[in-house]
Amino acid sequence: MSDKVKVVIDAMGGDNAPAAIVKGAYDAAKEYGERAKLLLVGPEAVVKSELAKYEGSDSLDIEIVNATEVIDCNESPTKAIKGKKDSSIVVGMNLIKEGKADAMVSAGSTGALLVGGQLLVKRIRGINRTPLAPVLPTINGVTLLCDSGANMDAKPEWLVQYAKMGSIYMEKVVGIKKPRVALVNVGLEEEKGNQLIKETYPLLKECKDINFIGFVEAREIPYGACDVVVADAFVGNVIIKLYEGTAGALLKIIKESIMSTTKGKIGGALIKSNLKSVKKLFDTSEYGGAPFLGLNGLVVKTHGNSGSGEIKSAVRQCITFNEQNISKIIKENVADASLNAPAES
Amino acid sequence: MSDKVKVVIDAMGGDNAPAAIVKGAYDAAKEYGERAKLLLVGPEAVVKSELAKYEGSDSLDIEIVNATEVIDCNESPTKAIKGKKDSSIVVGMNLIKEGKADAMVSAGSTGALLVGGQLLVKRIRGINRTPLAPVLPTINGVTLLCDSGANMDAKPEWLVQYAKMGSIYMEKVVGIKKPRVALVNVGLEEEKGNQLIKETYPLLKECKDINFIGFVEAREIPYGACDVVVADAFVGNVIIKLYEGTAGALLKIIKESIMSTTKGKIGGALIKSNLKSVKKLFDTSEYGGAPFLGLNGLVVKTHGNSGSGEIKSAVRQCITFNEQNISKIIKENVADASLNAPAES
Repeated sequence: MSDKVKVVIDAMGGDNAPAAIVKGAYDAAKEYGERAKLLLVGPEAVVKSELAKYEGSDSLDIEIVNATEVIDCNESPTKAIKGKKDSSIVVGMNLIKEGKADAMVSAGSTGALLVGGQLLVKRIRGINRTPLAPVLPTINGVTLLCDSGANMDAKPEWLVQYAKMGSIYMEKVVGIKKPRVALVNVGLEEEKGNQLIKETYPLLKECKDINFIGFVEAREIPYGACDVVVADAFVGNVIIKLYEGTAGALLKIIKESIMSTTKGKIGGALIKSNLKSVKKLFDTSEYGGAPFLGLNGLVVKTHGNSGSGEIKSAVRQCITFNEQNISKIIKENVADASLNAPAES
Repeated sequence: MSDKVKVVIDAMGGDNAPAAIVKGAYDAAKEYGERAKLLLVGPEAVVKSELAKYEGSDSLDIEIVNATEVIDCNESPTKAIKGKKDSSIVVGMNLIKEGKADAMVSAGSTGALLVGGQLLVKRIRGINRTPLAPVLPTINGVTLLCDSGANMDAKPEWLVQYAKMGSIYMEKVVGIKKPRVALVNVGLEEEKGNQLIKETYPLLKECKDINFIGFVEAREIPYGACDVVVADAFVGNVIIKLYEGTAGALLKIIKESIMSTTKGKIGGALIKSNLKSVKKLFDTSEYGGAPFLGLNGLVVKTHGNSGSGEIKSAVRQCITFNEQNISKIIKENVADASLNAPAES
């Protein structure tokens, strides 16, 4: 029992909570019950009655932990984390803080998860910032984006840590050998870029422990040019949102164009399933959740409109993360190295 | 004769020079000869023999201006502009400087055009920086992106000028009434963003002369959420390149998916023309060229792989720009206003 991974699930996070979240927890417990114990956090009565809908749920390794409040996506993150002590996010994170859990999955407010991560779960000593690192689909696989929007106005040494943590994650959790790490820039020549890029590049070039392949232009990301995309949070946020927006808009006008002619309508009916699978491939919510890297424990943020499938994937992610000892590897290879390095700002 | 717009065309710029460029000049002269005189700049003998291929070209209002050197895309822009005095870009820009031309079209090195614009054509006094402002396709029209990659490490007052110049351009050249101007951010709430955004937002809010609608998230740009997208050059460059990359990658996997099944192949044949028109719609090179806004004269950069159609569109753009007195409007409404404002950094 004791070597099972203990995963908190925020039953009240996201647009489809609690129904889809509880269903996801049930599915995860059924499939991964040998490896994980789930702690479902939310208003006890509500969660209990949701869970009771599923056959055999009482025999699964799920514990309900009561939390009476919910943090809304529109609330100020810092105020919410400090004020709502009995919210599912705060209660869940305190379980990690107290050593009663290893990881947490939530489809709730990204801001609250970021702030809660810093204040409650806390960064590994020596880690400057914890990037939110979603996996993006490419035409031949996936790539990890660090940081997709957590820490504005990045410093060069933050990006260096993102690169190292991202590389570890892609290797150990996603299973890519010697992940190709690249820094987003406006061109491939060394003299190009803004101040941040110019200061970061030489530092990354010196990193012996990652497979740094240099710059990547945004155009090449969807073609799978690298396995880890390093960017400051503002640029990373633009990347993930434009990925979603461009793909969505393009599929919409393809559909409209096809439906505008009779020939198109017939053809469209024949390729419907193809388009559907492509849409699924480019849907960034299809790949479980995005971890905040560098915390004392794992916090995984899933898409706001997560269904049960994503919650289940995120639980699997937490299990792998923990079984692979990622936090320990990050501590030893990234955090301690920074602490022992000559003074950094 | 004298009130015709005088447009320089760089015969040697881009992948398809000189053939496609000269063809574009010929087409433009045929269609817009009443409104424009074209100055085709390049090695005289080469340009002459290219032009002679087209029937009646000698009766068109095209003047060949000799320039023996060519600036390559891989050259250092500043070195090239300073060193190659007889290159088509330098000779062409000097024509504007000396008042012998009003505008210039080139598919050549963006960097050289930027540097040449600053050093030879020069900024309007009071304009801080000249953004490269391409038009991006959206599902229901186009939007102007300022800056797509010209001036790194922007300051708030630069972005304010981009917003104003972009608004003028969209209104007068593209014909959009009261263009909706938006600032790219990671969210819609006022407290979100990096330092640059937080400092720029209140300045834009105070601008009475533009229709500033607040923040736009990258996700909404392809859906036509605004008419002018304001971003610093790094973010703008990521936007235009990811637009291209995501659309290209998506169409590629749609094609592959369709071709992988027999049913798909039949359907694919029926919707081929639909897909083609969508591809054209999302091809950022379909919309003429991108102006550098705020110079004493117009410099239009067209895509590196420009064909004759783009050159012709860009000539039309130059004619409208000039006939609408855009430089004068920018001078009076943006530059002079900045000069008269209380001290800015």
